[in-house]
Amino acid sequence: MATTTVSMTTVLEPLPINALRKRPRKTETAAPSGKRWRIRVGERAKNIRNPIREIMDTVSGKENPAKKLLSLAQGDPTSYPHLRPSTAMVDALQTAVGSGHFNGYQPSQGSLVCREAVARNFSAPGRPALQSKDVFMTFGCSEALSHCIAALAAPGSNMLLPRPGFPLYSVLCEYHGVEVRYYDLLPDCGWQCDIGGIAKLVDENTCALLLNNPSNPCGAVFTREHLVAVLSTAEELGLPVIADEVYADMSFSRPFVACAAATASIPILSVCALSKRWLAPGWRVGWIAVHDADGALAAAGVPETLLKLCQVSLGPAAPIQGAVPEIFSAAPSGCEWHTDILTALEASAQCCMRRCRSIPGLEVASEAQGAMYMMVRLKPNALDLGTDDVLLASKLLEEESVAILPGQCFAAPGFFRVVFAAPEKVLEEAWDRIETFCRRHSLKAS
Amino acid sequence: MATTTVSMTTVLEPLPINALRKRPRKTETAAPSGKRWRIRVGERAKNIRNPIREIMDTVSGKENPAKKLLSLAQGDPTSYPHLRPSTAMVDALQTAVGSGHFNGYQPSQGSLVCREAVARNFSAPGRPALQSKDVFMTFGCSEALSHCIAALAAPGSNMLLPRPGFPLYSVLCEYHGVEVRYYDLLPDCGWQCDIGGIAKLVDENTCALLLNNPSNPCGAVFTREHLVAVLSTAEELGLPVIADEVYADMSFSRPFVACAAATASIPILSVCALSKRWLAPGWRVGWIAVHDADGALAAAGVPETLLKLCQVSLGPAAPIQGAVPEIFSAAPSGCEWHTDILTALEASAQCCMRRCRSIPGLEVASEAQGAMYMMVRLKPNALDLGTDDVLLASKLLEEESVAILPGQCFAAPGFFRVVFAAPEKVLEEAWDRIETFCRRHSLKAS
Repeated sequence: MATTTVSMTTVLEPLPINALRKRPRKTETAAPSGKRWRIRVGERAKNIRNPIREIMDTVSGKENPAKKLLSLAQGDPTSYPHLRPSTAMVDALQTAVGSGHFNGYQPSQGSLVCREAVARNFSAPGRPALQSKDVFMTFGCSEALSHCIAALAAPGSNMLLPRPGFPLYSVLCEYHGVEVRYYDLLPDCGWQCDIGGIAKLVDENTCALLLNNPSNPCGAVFTREHLVAVLSTAEELGLPVIADEVYADMSFSRPFVACAAATASIPILSVCALSKRWLAPGWRVGWIAVHDADGALAAAGVPETLLKLCQVSLGPAAPIQGAVPEIFSAAPSGCEWHTDILTALEASAQCCMRRCRSIPGLEVASEAQGAMYMMVRLKPNALDLGTDDVLLASKLLEEESVAILPGQCFAAPGFFRVVFAAPEKVLEEAWDRIETFCRRHSLKAS
Repeated sequence: MATTTVSMTTVLEPLPINALRKRPRKTETAAPSGKRWRIRVGERAKNIRNPIREIMDTVSGKENPAKKLLSLAQGDPTSYPHLRPSTAMVDALQTAVGSGHFNGYQPSQGSLVCREAVARNFSAPGRPALQSKDVFMTFGCSEALSHCIAALAAPGSNMLLPRPGFPLYSVLCEYHGVEVRYYDLLPDCGWQCDIGGIAKLVDENTCALLLNNPSNPCGAVFTREHLVAVLSTAEELGLPVIADEVYADMSFSRPFVACAAATASIPILSVCALSKRWLAPGWRVGWIAVHDADGALAAAGVPETLLKLCQVSLGPAAPIQGAVPEIFSAAPSGCEWHTDILTALEASAQCCMRRCRSIPGLEVASEAQGAMYMMVRLKPNALDLGTDDVLLASKLLEEESVAILPGQCFAAPGFFRVVFAAPEKVLEEAWDRIETFCRRHSLKAS
């Protein structure tokens, strides 16, 4: 491998963060001339882009060596030690591992006890209770989303995605051949959906409306009234909903309302995971709950298709599936461990908003209400970087060793995302540096 | 959901095993007339077929209620309690869970310590030592295979698969748009590859030769000489190799030789997992090792493409990745636990072959040498079922409550597969019933 022209190290070497700005799609890789191996790579796989992962896998080494890296970039609640799975959760998993009952293959759809536990815990008021057959266990929420999008990816279809939004949605749509159409979240209206804009995007090939609540990257938590309004529009348009509710019950501003609880009449594929609310993203356990009150999803063969997808991947780790019932019992919403987490997240959010508001050139568009994210807007004519979020992210890392993600990762140029799942001491130091950076780059100062 | 025409229960209700015989592809599911939801399912996902999982998920309930079900069908080594992960493996996983170090996201490619351990343990003599960058952690061997096939799935490509062969290969090829071309394994020559037939299948769009050694469903273990001959043919044809080596070191007939150890000059993607050799299929941890001595795979962008695929799925459960180094140290090939397993499997294989040879109408084509499988041929003009393996599987279940998989699951009509990972007492009882069944259906008896 040492003598090859394109070595593997090229992939793993740090990627300049400003490579984000213009990342040309690679042209077809021809077989190396004079080589005897005719090897070509698959188009769909080659064209995958996952901007967050690309940065997180490659960002190390670009920071200012004189300053310790402070990351407000990765959406991993366990990046700092104050947020951890509860002791009861860890005990439950150790018990499952030690039991000897969870070494073999589970049913493709997920183990029965695990699916029953999800059904019990994620049934929605006003809907028929979920049954185990309505639940599909997956490798984290990422695979849950992938399966939902693949299941609805009829030829020529398009899907409505939120903007700003989690980039995996568009990655998966492109991978599964679904055209992406963005509806806007309104930065000055609590990041609510631009309902009026949704209808304009829809045609006969629109296959679903994807809603994300609480929201990554906005940190918004929709009111019941707003959810009902959005879902009424979906119903008028005949659109099923994919509800990314991986941040369910991670709200400190108002009670979280699930899409399925806001309406009884819309077919909903709700996805969730142990990753965020239970602080265990590395455990890679997620699920799809099919809320199909009037049978439209079943009539079209959607659950059957989800099962086929599960039959290829064979479900998440059996010991963790085995622990899920005890995890749900031991760490229910509202328990002390959960409320302590929400209290910590709210304090962190308040800290970030307070600090941000005092920094020239920056603006909190709408308040963070849940999840662990806040979007910061770059004011026009305030910084010598303009409102170039990618440039800001790059310079902030190089000068101050603070990592944030530029809005362009989320189809939101002119903003950047802050993860506030860090202890307040870390946040204060990070904001000190961001403030120093912004004052240094302020147009008024120069 | 109660009133819908196609309910989810249709999917999960037991499927008649003879549905295998003629399983019509479902025609396009039109939107239900009079319904307001326009929901269509994705073609690629809808067309997935995974015959083994379809049967295993649905077979329950079809057996003779008067007799306890004895399954020689599922390729799960832990189906019976005598084969279990070692205590040291379980301890290693519990320690990783308790450490608190493996709750967060790992690098997409897999945790560094885990990849280093795979690299140390799966480097091949005569090749440059694997490095952590050459290893990609996956959700079991299934995802490892999927990533390899997706990475090589250039438009219009075809792949050479073994026949008989594990059905997931063709499922994944179809899913990723790769044409399937079968080369034969020779039932009367130790299930070796029909080398002469391979060259006839190849054209300019052939993207890889898939080799499976030790073999599912044949139980064959290739000699070094045979491997060298097959790989020389691949080299002459310019074909990279996907080596499904998930049964590596599960050989009781001769030492297992990895493809990468049989030749230094061929680009090889070798896939393996904790699933079989370590008896932990439910743990869902596998990997791809890229053996790319002359850089052809890197030059074509294959490792980079594998990384992109990993960046979407984000790797297997972190605690299990964290335990992998200790698992490899605690349960190396040749340790007492491993040799005890091989001894048990060999005794089981001998039992199956002995019993099979004494039953009219059945024939052991070539001896089982490893893995945990044996293929049984139906002699012509011997049974009233003819050589109809699907009919035999169906009747054997209905009459004797013995589950085996018909050869048609593996593109091998006229055979059936026996899993011998059961205790000898269970095997003897199962073969008693198979013998009773065959004598009842013998043409000579009637």
